Amino acid sequence: MSDFSTTRRQFHLPAGITYLDGNSLGPLPLAARERARAVLDEQWGELLIGAWNGAGWMDLPRRVGERIARLIGAPPGTVSVGDTLTVKVYQALSAALALRPERRVVLSDSGNFPSDLYAAQGLIERLGGGRELRVVAPEAVAEALDDEIAVLLLTQVDYRSGRLHDMRALTERAHAAGALVIWDLAHSAGALPLAVADCGVDLAVGCSYKYLNGGPGAPAFIYADAALTGQLRPDLRGWLGHAEPFAFERNWRPAAGVERLRIGTPPVLQLAVLEAALEVWEGVDMARLRARSIELSQRFIAGVEASCPQLALASPRDPAARGSQVSFAFAEGYAAMQALIARGVIGDFRAPDLMRFGFTPLYLDAADIDRAVAVLAEVLNAGEYRDGAPLAQGVVT
Amino acid sequence: MSDFSTTRRQFHLPAGITYLDGNSLGPLPLAARERARAVLDEQWGELLIGAWNGAGWMDLPRRVGERIARLIGAPPGTVSVGDTLTVKVYQALSAALALRPERRVVLSDSGNFPSDLYAAQGLIERLGGGRELRVVAPEAVAEALDDEIAVLLLTQVDYRSGRLHDMRALTERAHAAGALVIWDLAHSAGALPLAVADCGVDLAVGCSYKYLNGGPGAPAFIYADAALTGQLRPDLRGWLGHAEPFAFERNWRPAAGVERLRIGTPPVLQLAVLEAALEVWEGVDMARLRARSIELSQRFIAGVEASCPQLALASPRDPAARGSQVSFAFAEGYAAMQALIARGVIGDFRAPDLMRFGFTPLYLDAADIDRAVAVLAEVLNAGEYRDGAPLAQGVVT
Repeated sequence: MSDFSTTRRQFHLPAGITYLDGNSLGPLPLAARERARAVLDEQWGELLIGAWNGAGWMDLPRRVGERIARLIGAPPGTVSVGDTLTVKVYQALSAALALRPERRVVLSDSGNFPSDLYAAQGLIERLGGGRELRVVAPEAVAEALDDEIAVLLLTQVDYRSGRLHDMRALTERAHAAGALVIWDLAHSAGALPLAVADCGVDLAVGCSYKYLNGGPGAPAFIYADAALTGQLRPDLRGWLGHAEPFAFERNWRPAAGVERLRIGTPPVLQLAVLEAALEVWEGVDMARLRARSIELSQRFIAGVEASCPQLALASPRDPAARGSQVSFAFAEGYAAMQALIARGVIGDFRAPDLMRFGFTPLYLDAADIDRAVAVLAEVLNAGEYRDGAPLAQGVVT
Repeated sequence: MSDFSTTRRQFHLPAGITYLDGNSLGPLPLAARERARAVLDEQWGELLIGAWNGAGWMDLPRRVGERIARLIGAPPGTVSVGDTLTVKVYQALSAALALRPERRVVLSDSGNFPSDLYAAQGLIERLGGGRELRVVAPEAVAEALDDEIAVLLLTQVDYRSGRLHDMRALTERAHAAGALVIWDLAHSAGALPLAVADCGVDLAVGCSYKYLNGGPGAPAFIYADAALTGQLRPDLRGWLGHAEPFAFERNWRPAAGVERLRIGTPPVLQLAVLEAALEVWEGVDMARLRARSIELSQRFIAGVEASCPQLALASPRDPAARGSQVSFAFAEGYAAMQALIARGVIGDFRAPDLMRFGFTPLYLDAADIDRAVAVLAEVLNAGEYRDGAPLAQGVVT
């Protein structure tokens, strides 16, 4: 598994730690350190306000968007970066609903991350008019796509089980029913080969602190189909999405491209660190990454099933049907995860009973997997979890 | 003016620069450097996902909010930090409008920053139902407050002229008319003594990269009156505003306090840098800061009027009627500002003809003002602006 050794060397990986939680928060890319220092010392410190133009701050949302575009199969000029993922979900949904004014239903599934559902509920609650958020089981989505549906809003990879939706098939099905589609790629971007443009996706959003390693609170991204962009008038809009922000006009006049989805002043420091983090991806082939991710996760499943009979696989067994994470159910998973972390193998826990592990080929290899399996088996077979104090709940999904 | 020498020493001020643009982007506080390094190297780098709890990341929006609360006259537990200012305007307005369902008008003024108006327009456009954004002249606001008004949405200090609204009087007047009030404190927080709670303000928002020196793209803050908070159900909502985010429930159940206005995963790096920047304010008396700001701005006006007859004061002459910035109108102000910046005196320009200067006692003293006046007089009297190439427009308002 030496093909990814050059990317592994670009991360700071703490001594003695095996990190299987890059699906929550990627580790520190070495380039991010230097970039943060430069932004503070050389740009903010020395150029002051002049850095907006002089150091290219103003252009960061577009520039970082170009790097992400390549990773999700989007053409140049169709991705903008900023805000949090929930804000972008809300913004995308508001713009999409306006394009289907005669329809009343937003369709999602019970595998969607709750924050996406909250944003949709908030918008729909206020719009009223008989609008409805309809949440069905993941396997019932295709069937539920009928002519009532205005927008299909799905997260491609389930944050608990790793179950993977078929983006192409569901997008086609939604379009056949006359609905627009918004994909949340939180657990997909940087984990899977994606082809949002080729699949005909209307809008997509995602976060950058998981597989893209942008750091804690790194901003979200939004993709809009180039043919659709000119029609988008999001409720949530701001001066930097105006065609001429510095004209300071009283009425919003949208920028021509995806820039219309920009809102306020961008988080320069987070964007600059993210931009540096994305340099790791140069030359990475997403199909090879996916193949390696499957190798690692299959190796982990085989190892755990051979040595930890207490655990039950809670993710799809078919690797083609899951993202880049694997969960095992265990009634005492909370304490077991705590014991595992205390031994330097970091995964996380999701209620009620899921031990969750992420596979990130950029910086993990087979030796990491074997160590994780061995330590997990020791923890379980020694019953270490029985003495565990309650684990402070992990934070990021 | 030695009283602020201890705060001045806490900033990095580039050699040879006189910085009168801290009303757009405050300079680098020395503590911010070290904090950014610690977040990357010691927290993200070493603790990885464990830093959310282990390094207090999760609590940053509240902790930073407490520091800002003191500066705006808000009690503990009433301010949360995150997102951009425009997002917070939208969120506050959506929550406020829901409390006045029978009223149809949002009142604002032509001195408001355009992005606030765009957010209001976006929300109102979608809500429909005869709702209207009514924009009047600043001096006509009090008169326009009648029983049609659901919400009064104002920026206290005009970003161009520095004209200052009377927060107490307009809040009282709005309440007497049955309206709720949202104040945008973008150009107020850190510039003026504020008493949002004592004035009975319902909601307030602001940014932290101007007078609070939080760095480029530092997050916004939102204040909610403690008695009102329990009624707020913003359209724009997310998992971190849920009463129990890690229960991952399907329906949004708002947190008890101002935390319900949190949305997505917070921008940790920006928040940590902002938290460090706010340490400068420890022990600063806002009334003394305001007195010093007035001294500096009056000194500047007197100097400019004595030596630069080409310029016409475009801010209120009465210092009690303006914030902490002063603008002069000059037909060739664009090129003149460029020439001034080339000489190391940094202000900014706002179309069509305003040269804008900010006064920030934390790190400016009388000698800075005298130098700025002298260089400005040289530039104008030598006609240097006549050779200027077009100035790249400054970015932050």
